[in-house]
Amino acid sequence: MDKSKLFIAIPASIISDTPHLREKTSKIGLIARAAAIFRVNKIIVYPDSTRENQLRDLKFIAKILNYIETPQYLRKNLFKIESDLQYAGILPPLRAPHHPTSGKNRDLKVGEYREGIILNQTKEGLIVDIGVQSTALLRERQFSVGERLTVQVIKNDNNRVEIQAVNRDDVSTYWGFQVIVEDQTFGHMLQTQLFDLVISTARIADNFVDVSDKIAKRWSKAEKVLIAFGAPSRGLHEIVKEEGLSLEAVSDFIVNTVPKQGTATVRTEEALLISLALFNAYFNL
Amino acid sequence: MDKSKLFIAIPASIISDTPHLREKTSKIGLIARAAAIFRVNKIIVYPDSTRENQLRDLKFIAKILNYIETPQYLRKNLFKIESDLQYAGILPPLRAPHHPTSGKNRDLKVGEYREGIILNQTKEGLIVDIGVQSTALLRERQFSVGERLTVQVIKNDNNRVEIQAVNRDDVSTYWGFQVIVEDQTFGHMLQTQLFDLVISTARIADNFVDVSDKIAKRWSKAEKVLIAFGAPSRGLHEIVKEEGLSLEAVSDFIVNTVPKQGTATVRTEEALLISLALFNAYFNL
Repeated sequence: MDKSKLFIAIPASIISDTPHLREKTSKIGLIARAAAIFRVNKIIVYPDSTRENQLRDLKFIAKILNYIETPQYLRKNLFKIESDLQYAGILPPLRAPHHPTSGKNRDLKVGEYREGIILNQTKEGLIVDIGVQSTALLRERQFSVGERLTVQVIKNDNNRVEIQAVNRDDVSTYWGFQVIVEDQTFGHMLQTQLFDLVISTARIADNFVDVSDKIAKRWSKAEKVLIAFGAPSRGLHEIVKEEGLSLEAVSDFIVNTVPKQGTATVRTEEALLISLALFNAYFNL
Repeated sequence: MDKSKLFIAIPASIISDTPHLREKTSKIGLIARAAAIFRVNKIIVYPDSTRENQLRDLKFIAKILNYIETPQYLRKNLFKIESDLQYAGILPPLRAPHHPTSGKNRDLKVGEYREGIILNQTKEGLIVDIGVQSTALLRERQFSVGERLTVQVIKNDNNRVEIQAVNRDDVSTYWGFQVIVEDQTFGHMLQTQLFDLVISTARIADNFVDVSDKIAKRWSKAEKVLIAFGAPSRGLHEIVKEEGLSLEAVSDFIVNTVPKQGTATVRTEEALLISLALFNAYFNL
């Protein structure tokens, strides 16, 4: 899988049927976990109603996703204590490679990648918190205090740690997801954003297994793939229809990944794990 | 898929890493949803430690699974108000076919199946609550007051509803799952219980896709299939090893359904949706 290839899109209304903030938080936690398990690069959160203003929910979903994606040692610097994060303590750990479990200098290896935050500036360079006992020195100047960045350890002697800045995409292992809050509704977004392959999931759709060969051919050549999800109360067909568009016109494939489902509806967080499991197995993500 | 064919096994320790009762409850809710989405017939909850007594957790898991599987109108009769069910209100609805959405007599069709509970006995027969405005008459005597049973509507005129008892397995649509609390640890259970096909899921295992053809051959002939799951902190290999057995000896196949996972661990409730999604797609459950 190429870097930054896999995008998923989820609607703002995923949390609208969940009355309490605590369960809204844990539902978003499940979505973050599903994305990380299957090495999703970008999560797009889109408004799925043309009638209501969903900005509040979009921002809330993005905040929780960003919080859980952030390594624990950076959270206190990057997030303020606020009511939206009241139940952040119940979120499951992401356990992704950019969330190191050791904070000890002696476990830090030269060549290792870390996420860091710029703490301050000295004559020698920038001082960066990379989640170990001592801060690290970055002999570069192009970042501002408070900025988050990806770094690589280039020296670790006698509690003096030196790092260099790297591009997130240069890290060879999966390095978490980025969150994009979309301001256009789903169909309109697809008319302006360019993907090489758009796969929409829906109940009324082709059985995934029947079209998997056709998708596979497109998948292997695609540089940007989007897998889109609707809400349980409102599938992608309805969401796009409300915009005066058709799902067929904006998607390359519309697939049902849960043939013969035993329940009347499949929730978005469930559909995410189910669908990504199939794409991972069939297309060797 | 034959009736009562698909069994899953989950360990008692799935809730041990979740400190609060509220999140334990919602985790079990996810497991129930996954089972119903993929039409699982029986959920076996097994002790996965030879060192601790896990009876308390086994019973709690079974109680929540049974609660969520029970149609809403039967819950008040079948469950007492108690602290274990304190957070039952946050459980997602199962939305399975045996959870009808209408409680109106006029929506009830002759031939329809319902779950019911025996309320009392009269000269005519047993009086049964089947979740509509009027109670139903069952002209049979072999059930006791308080018992739950599956029934079929045979008459519905002028608010007089008559039913007959049927075997749960005779219902042609998916009709929920049954819960079995196992008292033996996993390996020992497999030495005494007979399944035609035992598939264990583990991280150190064959890639599911590579052995799917071999499994498919066995699957189509099997009458009782077990898909077994370990706990995130303790996989099936370790669980069985602690019993002095080997996972290879007690399983027909050991499969990894999440190749190249982006997170260090996959939780049981996540593995359940992922694995059942693959089995459903590949073996046409």
